[in-house]
Amino acid sequence: MARVPVVNVGGVLLVSIQDELVDDSVAELQQHLTEQVVAQRARGVLIDISVLDVVDSFLARTLHDIAAATSLLAAQTVVVGMRPAVAITLVELGLMLPGLRTALSVDDGLALVGHGTARP
Amino acid sequence: MARVPVVNVGGVLLVSIQDELVDDSVAELQQHLTEQVVAQRARGVLIDISVLDVVDSFLARTLHDIAAATSLLAAQTVVVGMRPAVAITLVELGLMLPGLRTALSVDDGLALVGHGTARP
Repeated sequence: MARVPVVNVGGVLLVSIQDELVDDSVAELQQHLTEQVVAQRARGVLIDISVLDVVDSFLARTLHDIAAATSLLAAQTVVVGMRPAVAITLVELGLMLPGLRTALSVDDGLALVGHGTARP
Repeated sequence: MARVPVVNVGGVLLVSIQDELVDDSVAELQQHLTEQVVAQRARGVLIDISVLDVVDSFLARTLHDIAAATSLLAAQTVVVGMRPAVAITLVELGLMLPGLRTALSVDDGLALVGHGTARP
């Protein structure tokens, strides 16, 4: 997982995707994140995709699946930093990602998952 | 975008469509609005279509797509000022626009997107 570092910021796992991921890395990320949510008793997961110009259907579905899996583990996932062009492309592809929460910035995302408050 | 001015009213982008748009302008509007949501950290988008006598299927779908894209960018889109005849036509065309929020007036729309409150 060297390519996708995960940092614990006050009980929230911050994942900054650095560049286009190959499909294997995406699947690995999903497994790693869900394990870390439990291991670190994380309240939430922020996935920063601000460097991505393109989000393909596989990554989009994985983001949705990560959010669903962490939700089952009582943690919220928020995707932050989506570019406007990526949003338009996702809509054109019909990938509306229901249930996936988004925020413009890491700060907004931290506010969404209740950063600074105790895990319920 | 001279034909479709976008005004920021307390963190909400207000778009007043002035006359029938050609298809190119509609696509341009979608791109411009999503970019402005991010650039201006807008909480919501109000699209005023009160001057329109007719909403064709392309514009209707674009309104829906704008709402979906801004939703991915953590902003809500509300279409305001739809005329009764337009509503009837949209239903007859089978364009129910699921997920698209509407309000009768700009004031009602601003209330819907939580105007005056801090961005969550």
